[in-house]
Amino acid sequence: MKLLEEEIRKRGKILPGNVLKVNSFLNHKIDPVLLDKMADEWYEKFKNDNITKVVTIESSGIAMAILVALKFKCELVFAKKGKSSTLGNVMTASIYSYTKEKEVLISIENGYIKEDDNVLIIDDFLANGSAALGLISIIKYAKANLKGIGIAIEKGFQDGGKKLRAEGYRIESLAIVKSMDYTTGTIEFEEA
Amino acid sequence: MKLLEEEIRKRGKILPGNVLKVNSFLNHKIDPVLLDKMADEWYEKFKNDNITKVVTIESSGIAMAILVALKFKCELVFAKKGKSSTLGNVMTASIYSYTKEKEVLISIENGYIKEDDNVLIIDDFLANGSAALGLISIIKYAKANLKGIGIAIEKGFQDGGKKLRAEGYRIESLAIVKSMDYTTGTIEFEEA
Repeated sequence: MKLLEEEIRKRGKILPGNVLKVNSFLNHKIDPVLLDKMADEWYEKFKNDNITKVVTIESSGIAMAILVALKFKCELVFAKKGKSSTLGNVMTASIYSYTKEKEVLISIENGYIKEDDNVLIIDDFLANGSAALGLISIIKYAKANLKGIGIAIEKGFQDGGKKLRAEGYRIESLAIVKSMDYTTGTIEFEEA
Repeated sequence: MKLLEEEIRKRGKILPGNVLKVNSFLNHKIDPVLLDKMADEWYEKFKNDNITKVVTIESSGIAMAILVALKFKCELVFAKKGKSSTLGNVMTASIYSYTKEKEVLISIENGYIKEDDNVLIIDDFLANGSAALGLISIIKYAKANLKGIGIAIEKGFQDGGKKLRAEGYRIESLAIVKSMDYTTGTIEFEEA
Protein backbone atom coordinates (compact mmCIF):
# COMPACT_ATOMS: atom_id res chain seq x y z
CA MET A 1 0.00 0.00 0.00
CA LYS A 2 1.83 3.04 -1.34
CA LEU A 3 0.18 5.49 1.07
CA LEU A 4 1.31 3.52 4.13
CA GLU A 5 4.86 3.21 2.75
CA GLU A 6 4.93 6.97 2.21
CA GLU A 7 3.74 7.63 5.76
CA ILE A 8 6.37 5.27 7.16
CA ARG A 9 9.08 7.09 5.18
CA LYS A 10 7.77 10.47 6.26
CA ARG A 11 6.81 9.83 9.87
CA GLY A 12 8.51 6.61 10.97
CA LYS A 13 11.76 6.59 12.92
CA ILE A 14 14.43 3.93 12.57
CA LEU A 15 16.18 3.12 15.82
CA PRO A 16 19.12 0.82 16.56
CA GLY A 17 18.27 -2.88 16.86
CA ASN A 18 15.94 -2.86 13.82
CA VAL A 19 13.25 -0.98 15.72
CA LEU A 20 10.85 0.91 13.49
CA LYS A 21 8.96 3.46 15.54
CA VAL A 22 5.58 4.45 14.13
CA ASN A 23 4.29 5.93 17.37
CA SER A 24 3.39 9.24 15.76
CA PHE A 25 0.67 7.95 13.41
CA LEU A 26 0.04 4.21 13.84
CA ASN A 27 0.12 2.86 17.38
CA HIS A 28 0.28 5.55 20.08
CA LYS A 29 -0.81 8.76 18.39
CA ILE A 30 -3.02 7.48 15.60
CA ASP A 31 -4.25 8.91 12.30
CA PRO A 32 -7.77 7.46 11.99
CA VAL A 33 -8.21 8.44 8.34
CA LEU A 34 -5.09 6.49 7.37
CA LEU A 35 -6.21 3.50 9.45
CA ASP A 36 -9.63 3.57 7.81
CA LYS A 37 -7.99 3.43 4.36
CA MET A 38 -5.89 0.49 5.56
CA ALA A 39 -9.09 -1.20 6.73
CA ASP A 40 -10.52 -0.69 3.21
CA GLU A 41 -7.49 -2.49 1.75
CA TRP A 42 -7.93 -5.51 4.01
CA TYR A 43 -11.66 -5.51 3.35
CA GLU A 44 -11.00 -5.67 -0.41
CA LYS A 45 -8.58 -8.58 0.05
CA PHE A 46 -10.84 -10.67 2.28
CA LYS A 47 -14.34 -9.61 1.22
CA ASN A 48 -15.06 -12.99 -0.41
CA ASP A 49 -13.99 -15.02 2.63
CA ASN A 50 -17.18 -14.61 4.64
CA ILE A 51 -15.26 -13.24 7.63
CA THR A 52 -17.36 -13.58 10.81
CA LYS A 53 -14.77 -12.55 13.42
CA VAL A 54 -11.78 -10.23 13.54
CA VAL A 55 -9.17 -11.14 16.15
CA THR A 56 -6.29 -9.02 17.41
CA ILE A 57 -4.17 -8.52 20.51
CA GLU A 58 -4.02 -5.57 22.87
CA SER A 59 -3.15 -2.82 22.49
CA SER A 60 -1.68 -1.70 19.19
CA GLY A 61 -3.88 -3.87 17.01
CA ILE A 62 -7.21 -2.72 18.39
CA ALA A 63 -7.63 0.58 16.55
CA MET A 64 -7.10 -0.93 13.10
CA ALA A 65 -9.01 -4.12 13.93
CA ILE A 66 -12.22 -2.35 15.00
CA LEU A 67 -12.28 -0.41 11.71
CA VAL A 68 -11.91 -3.69 9.81
CA ALA A 69 -14.61 -5.36 11.91
CA LEU A 70 -16.94 -2.43 11.19
CA LYS A 71 -16.49 -2.96 7.43
CA PHE A 72 -17.29 -6.66 7.75
CA LYS A 73 -20.07 -5.85 10.25
CA CYS A 74 -18.75 -8.68 12.40
CA GLU A 75 -17.48 -8.80 15.95
CA LEU A 76 -13.94 -8.07 17.05
CA VAL A 77 -12.23 -9.99 19.85
CA PHE A 78 -8.93 -8.78 21.23
CA ALA A 79 -6.70 -11.07 23.29
CA LYS A 80 -5.85 -9.61 26.67
CA LYS A 81 -2.34 -9.60 28.02
CA GLY A 82 -1.56 -10.66 31.58
CA LYS A 83 -4.20 -11.38 34.17
CA SER A 84 -7.48 -9.50 34.52
CA SER A 85 -10.07 -10.02 37.20
CA THR A 86 -12.87 -9.36 34.70
CA LEU A 87 -12.25 -12.46 32.59
CA GLY A 88 -14.01 -15.77 33.19
CA ASN A 89 -12.75 -19.08 31.80
CA VAL A 90 -10.21 -18.39 29.11
CA MET A 91 -8.24 -19.86 26.23
CA THR A 92 -4.59 -18.87 26.60
CA ALA A 93 -1.25 -18.83 24.83
CA SER A 94 2.19 -17.55 25.74
CA ILE A 95 3.98 -15.07 23.49
CA TYR A 96 7.28 -13.25 23.69
CA SER A 97 6.92 -9.47 23.70
CA TYR A 98 10.01 -7.72 22.37
CA THR A 99 8.84 -4.30 23.55
CA LYS A 100 8.16 -5.61 27.08
CA GLU A 101 11.16 -7.98 26.87
CA LYS A 102 9.37 -10.90 28.50
CA GLU A 103 6.98 -13.80 27.99
CA VAL A 104 3.40 -12.62 28.20
CA LEU A 105 0.26 -14.69 28.67
CA ILE A 106 -2.57 -13.79 26.27
CA SER A 107 -6.18 -14.78 26.94
CA ILE A 108 -9.51 -14.86 25.15
CA GLU A 109 -12.64 -15.79 27.02
CA ASN A 110 -14.06 -19.23 26.22
CA GLY A 111 -16.75 -19.16 23.57
CA TYR A 112 -15.79 -15.79 22.10
CA ILE A 113 -14.34 -17.56 19.08
CA LYS A 114 -16.62 -20.31 17.83
CA GLU A 115 -16.14 -23.43 15.76
CA ASP A 116 -18.04 -21.98 12.79
CA ASP A 117 -16.21 -18.64 12.83
CA ASN A 118 -14.20 -17.53 9.81
CA VAL A 119 -11.43 -15.56 11.45
CA LEU A 120 -9.29 -12.71 10.18
CA ILE A 121 -6.32 -11.76 12.40
CA ILE A 122 -5.30 -8.09 12.24
CA ASP A 123 -2.12 -6.71 13.82
CA ASP A 124 0.21 -3.76 13.44
CA PHE A 125 3.53 -5.61 13.12
CA LEU A 126 4.80 -8.99 11.99
CA ALA A 127 8.43 -9.66 12.87
CA ASN A 128 9.30 -13.04 14.36
CA GLY A 129 5.64 -14.10 14.36
CA SER A 130 5.30 -14.79 18.07
CA ALA A 131 2.08 -12.80 18.53
CA ALA A 132 0.49 -14.31 15.41
CA LEU A 133 1.44 -17.84 16.48
CA GLY A 134 -0.10 -17.24 19.90
CA LEU A 135 -3.38 -16.10 18.34
CA ILE A 136 -3.31 -19.00 15.88
CA SER A 137 -2.96 -21.51 18.71
CA ILE A 138 -6.04 -20.04 20.42
CA ILE A 139 -8.01 -20.06 17.14
CA LYS A 140 -7.01 -23.71 16.61
CA TYR A 141 -8.07 -24.56 20.16
CA ALA A 142 -11.45 -22.99 19.38
CA LYS A 143 -11.55 -25.09 16.14
CA ALA A 144 -12.41 -22.00 14.10
CA ASN A 145 -11.33 -21.42 10.48
CA LEU A 146 -8.46 -19.00 10.09
CA LYS A 147 -8.96 -17.25 6.75
CA GLY A 148 -5.92 -15.04 6.90
CA ILE A 149 -3.73 -12.54 8.68
CA GLY A 150 -3.75 -8.83 7.86
CA ILE A 151 -0.58 -7.04 8.93
CA ALA A 152 0.18 -3.33 8.68
CA ILE A 153 3.98 -3.56 8.64
CA GLU A 154 5.89 -6.77 8.07
CA LYS A 155 9.59 -6.84 8.78
CA GLY A 156 10.56 -8.91 5.76
CA PHE A 157 14.10 -9.36 7.03
CA GLN A 158 12.83 -11.30 10.06
CA ASP A 159 11.47 -14.78 9.61
CA GLY A 160 7.88 -14.60 10.96
CA GLY A 161 6.23 -14.04 7.59
CA LYS A 162 8.32 -16.72 5.89
CA LYS A 163 7.52 -19.31 8.57
CA LEU A 164 3.79 -18.56 8.55
CA ARG A 165 3.53 -18.63 4.75
CA ALA A 166 5.47 -21.92 4.68
CA GLU A 167 2.83 -23.36 7.01
CA GLY A 168 0.17 -22.32 4.50
CA TYR A 169 -1.27 -19.25 6.20
CA ARG A 170 -2.40 -16.39 4.01
CA ILE A 171 -0.63 -13.20 5.08
CA GLU A 172 -1.66 -9.82 3.64
CA SER A 173 0.87 -7.22 4.72
CA LEU A 174 0.22 -3.65 3.61
CA ALA A 175 3.92 -2.76 3.75
CA ILE A 176 6.88 -5.14 3.82
CA VAL A 177 10.17 -3.66 4.95
CA LYS A 178 13.04 -5.21 3.00
CA SER A 179 15.76 -3.40 4.88
CA MET A 180 16.32 -0.38 7.05
CA ASP A 181 19.41 1.42 8.24
CA TYR A 182 19.33 3.64 11.28
CA THR A 183 22.69 5.26 10.51
CA THR A 184 21.39 6.71 7.22
CA GLY A 185 17.68 6.68 8.11
CA THR A 186 16.87 4.87 4.86
CA ILE A 187 14.20 2.22 4.50
CA GLU A 188 13.41 -0.05 1.54
CA PHE A 189 10.15 -1.86 0.88
CA GLU A 190 9.47 -5.02 -1.10
CA GLU A 191 7.51 -4.50 -4.30
CA ALA A 192 3.83 -5.30 -3.82
CA MET B 1 -28.61 6.25 25.07
CA LYS B 2 -31.48 3.77 25.08
CA LEU B 3 -29.77 1.29 22.76
CA LEU B 4 -26.73 1.00 25.03
CA GLU B 5 -28.93 0.57 28.11
CA GLU B 6 -30.83 -2.21 26.34
CA GLU B 7 -27.59 -3.97 25.38
CA ILE B 8 -26.34 -3.71 28.97
CA ARG B 9 -29.58 -5.24 30.24
CA LYS B 10 -29.48 -7.96 27.61
CA ARG B 11 -25.79 -8.81 27.49
CA GLY B 12 -24.18 -7.39 30.64
CA LYS B 13 -23.48 -9.49 33.71
CA ILE B 14 -23.65 -8.19 37.25
CA LEU B 15 -21.07 -9.72 39.55
CA PRO B 16 -20.48 -9.32 43.28
CA GLY B 17 -18.59 -6.18 44.33
CA ASN B 18 -20.51 -3.91 41.95
CA VAL B 19 -18.69 -5.30 38.93
CA LEU B 20 -20.60 -4.89 35.66
CA LYS B 21 -19.16 -7.19 33.06
CA VAL B 22 -19.69 -6.05 29.47
CA ASN B 23 -17.01 -8.30 28.00
CA SER B 24 -19.36 -9.84 25.48
CA PHE B 25 -20.05 -6.69 23.44
CA LEU B 26 -18.11 -3.66 24.70
CA ASN B 27 -14.53 -4.30 25.82
CA HIS B 28 -13.24 -7.78 25.00
CA LYS B 29 -15.56 -9.14 22.32
CA ILE B 30 -16.82 -5.99 20.69
CA ASP B 31 -19.85 -5.11 18.56
CA PRO B 32 -18.46 -2.51 16.12
CA VAL B 33 -21.89 -1.40 14.86
CA LEU B 34 -22.99 -0.53 18.41
CA LEU B 35 -19.71 1.29 19.08
CA ASP B 36 -20.10 3.27 15.87
CA LYS B 37 -23.56 4.40 16.98
CA MET B 38 -22.08 5.41 20.34
CA ALA B 39 -19.43 7.39 18.48
CA ASP B 40 -22.23 9.17 16.59
CA GLU B 41 -23.78 10.18 19.92
CA TRP B 42 -20.56 11.68 21.23
CA TYR B 43 -19.96 13.40 17.89
CA GLU B 44 -23.40 15.05 18.12
CA LYS B 45 -22.68 16.26 21.65
CA PHE B 46 -19.23 17.71 20.92
CA LYS B 47 -19.47 18.67 17.24
CA ASN B 48 -19.40 22.41 18.02
CA ASP B 49 -16.33 22.19 20.27
CA ASN B 50 -13.72 22.09 17.52
CA ILE B 51 -12.23 18.88 18.89
CA THR B 52 -8.66 18.41 17.61
CA LYS B 53 -7.59 15.41 19.66
CA VAL B 54 -9.28 12.38 21.19
CA VAL B 55 -7.49 10.90 24.20
CA THR B 56 -8.09 7.54 25.85
CA ILE B 57 -6.24 4.90 27.83
CA GLU B 58 -5.32 1.38 26.84
CA SER B 59 -6.94 -0.98 26.23
CA SER B 60 -10.70 -0.85 26.63
CA GLY B 61 -11.11 2.74 25.48
CA ILE B 62 -9.27 2.39 22.18
CA ALA B 63 -11.97 0.78 20.03
CA MET B 64 -14.59 3.43 20.84
CA ALA B 65 -12.08 6.28 20.76
CA ILE B 66 -10.79 5.55 17.24
CA LEU B 67 -14.35 5.59 15.90
CA VAL B 68 -14.93 8.97 17.57
CA ALA B 69 -11.61 10.31 16.22
CA LEU B 70 -12.58 9.18 12.73
CA LYS B 71 -15.82 11.20 12.94
CA PHE B 72 -13.91 14.32 14.04
CA LYS B 73 -11.15 13.53 11.49
CA CYS B 74 -8.65 14.28 14.23
CA GLU B 75 -5.89 12.22 15.81
CA LEU B 76 -6.33 9.79 18.69
CA VAL B 77 -3.72 9.37 21.42
CA PHE B 78 -4.00 6.53 23.87
CA ALA B 79 -2.06 6.57 27.14
CA LYS B 80 0.07 3.47 27.58
CA LYS B 81 0.15 1.53 30.81
CA GLY B 82 3.40 0.42 32.40
CA LYS B 83 6.77 0.76 30.71
CA SER B 84 7.41 0.30 27.02
CA SER B 85 10.77 0.41 25.31
CA THR B 86 9.23 2.09 22.26
CA LEU B 87 8.33 5.34 24.03
CA GLY B 88 10.66 8.36 24.13
CA ASN B 89 10.26 11.19 26.64
CA VAL B 90 6.84 10.96 28.22
CA MET B 91 4.26 12.77 30.31
CA THR B 92 3.05 10.44 33.07
CA ALA B 93 0.44 10.01 35.76
CA SER B 94 -0.32 7.28 38.26
CA ILE B 95 -3.78 5.70 38.39
CA TYR B 96 -5.30 2.93 40.45
CA SER B 97 -6.57 0.03 38.35
CA TYR B 98 -9.37 -1.91 40.05
CA THR B 99 -9.22 -4.74 37.55
CA LYS B 100 -5.44 -5.12 37.99
CA GLU B 101 -5.67 -4.23 41.71
CA LYS B 102 -2.61 -2.00 41.72
CA GLU B 103 -1.25 1.45 40.94
CA VAL B 104 -0.38 1.72 37.26
CA LEU B 105 1.78 4.33 35.56
CA ILE B 106 0.25 5.78 32.40
CA SER B 107 2.33 7.60 29.80
CA ILE B 108 1.85 9.74 26.70
CA GLU B 109 4.82 10.79 24.63
CA ASN B 110 5.84 14.43 24.94
CA GLY B 111 4.37 16.63 22.25
CA TYR B 112 1.53 14.27 21.32
CA ILE B 113 -0.92 16.57 23.08
CA LYS B 114 -0.26 20.21 22.25
CA GLU B 115 -1.07 23.51 23.90
CA ASP B 116 -3.58 24.46 21.21
CA ASP B 117 -5.37 21.09 21.23
CA ASN B 118 -9.07 20.87 22.10
CA VAL B 119 -9.24 17.49 23.78
CA LEU B 120 -12.08 15.02 24.16
CA ILE B 121 -11.43 12.12 26.54
CA ILE B 122 -13.25 8.88 25.70
CA ASP B 123 -13.40 5.87 27.99
CA ASP B 124 -15.55 2.82 28.57
CA PHE B 125 -16.18 3.21 32.33
CA LEU B 126 -16.33 5.98 34.91
CA ALA B 127 -16.47 4.75 38.51
CA ASN B 128 -14.17 6.42 41.04
CA GLY B 129 -12.64 8.63 38.34
CA SER B 130 -9.03 7.54 38.80
CA ALA B 131 -8.35 6.93 35.10
CA ALA B 132 -10.01 10.21 34.06
CA LEU B 133 -8.07 12.17 36.69
CA GLY B 134 -4.82 10.65 35.45
CA LEU B 135 -5.57 11.68 31.87
CA ILE B 136 -6.68 15.15 33.03
CA SER B 137 -3.37 15.69 34.84
CA ILE B 138 -1.45 14.84 31.66
CA ILE B 139 -3.68 17.14 29.58
CA LYS B 140 -3.10 19.94 32.11
CA TYR B 141 0.64 19.33 32.00
CA ALA B 142 0.45 19.70 28.20
CA LYS B 143 -1.56 22.94 28.74
CA ALA B 144 -4.23 21.75 26.30
CA ASN B 145 -7.94 22.60 26.54
CA LEU B 146 -10.09 19.78 27.85
CA LYS B 147 -13.50 20.17 26.20
CA GLY B 148 -15.15 17.20 27.83
CA ILE B 149 -15.22 13.55 28.75
CA GLY B 150 -17.30 10.97 26.89
CA ILE B 151 -18.03 7.86 28.93
CA ALA B 152 -19.86 4.75 27.81
CA ILE B 153 -21.02 3.53 31.22
CA GLU B 154 -20.92 5.67 34.35
CA LYS B 155 -21.44 4.00 37.71
CA GLY B 156 -23.63 6.73 39.18
CA PHE B 157 -23.46 5.18 42.64
CA GLN B 158 -19.70 5.76 42.80
CA ASP B 159 -18.37 9.27 43.19
CA GLY B 160 -16.13 9.82 40.15
CA GLY B 161 -18.75 11.58 38.04
CA LYS B 162 -19.92 13.74 40.95
CA LYS B 163 -16.35 14.85 41.79
CA LEU B 164 -15.47 15.64 38.17
CA ARG B 165 -18.69 17.59 37.53
CA ALA B 166 -18.14 19.52 40.77
CA GLU B 167 -14.73 20.56 39.41
CA GLY B 168 -16.46 21.90 36.30
CA TYR B 169 -15.68 19.17 33.80
CA ARG B 170 -18.28 18.34 31.19
CA ILE B 171 -19.10 14.62 31.36
CA GLU B 172 -21.27 12.99 28.70
CA SER B 173 -22.11 9.47 29.80
CA LEU B 174 -24.19 7.37 27.41
CA ALA B 175 -25.56 5.22 30.24
CA ILE B 176 -25.56 6.01 33.96
CA VAL B 177 -26.16 3.06 36.25
CA LYS B 178 -28.17 4.17 39.28
CA SER B 179 -28.06 0.81 41.02
CA MET B 180 -27.47 -2.84 40.32
CA ASP B 181 -28.05 -5.98 42.30
CA TYR B 182 -26.20 -9.17 41.52
CA THR B 183 -28.52 -11.34 43.59
CA THR B 184 -31.52 -10.46 41.41
CA GLY B 185 -29.59 -9.47 38.28
CA THR B 186 -31.51 -6.19 38.07
CA ILE B 187 -30.01 -2.92 36.94
CA GLU B 188 -31.49 0.58 36.99
CA PHE B 189 -30.38 3.56 34.93
CA GLU B 190 -30.72 7.25 35.61
CA GLU B 191 -33.07 9.09 33.26
CA ALA B 192 -31.17 10.85 30.48
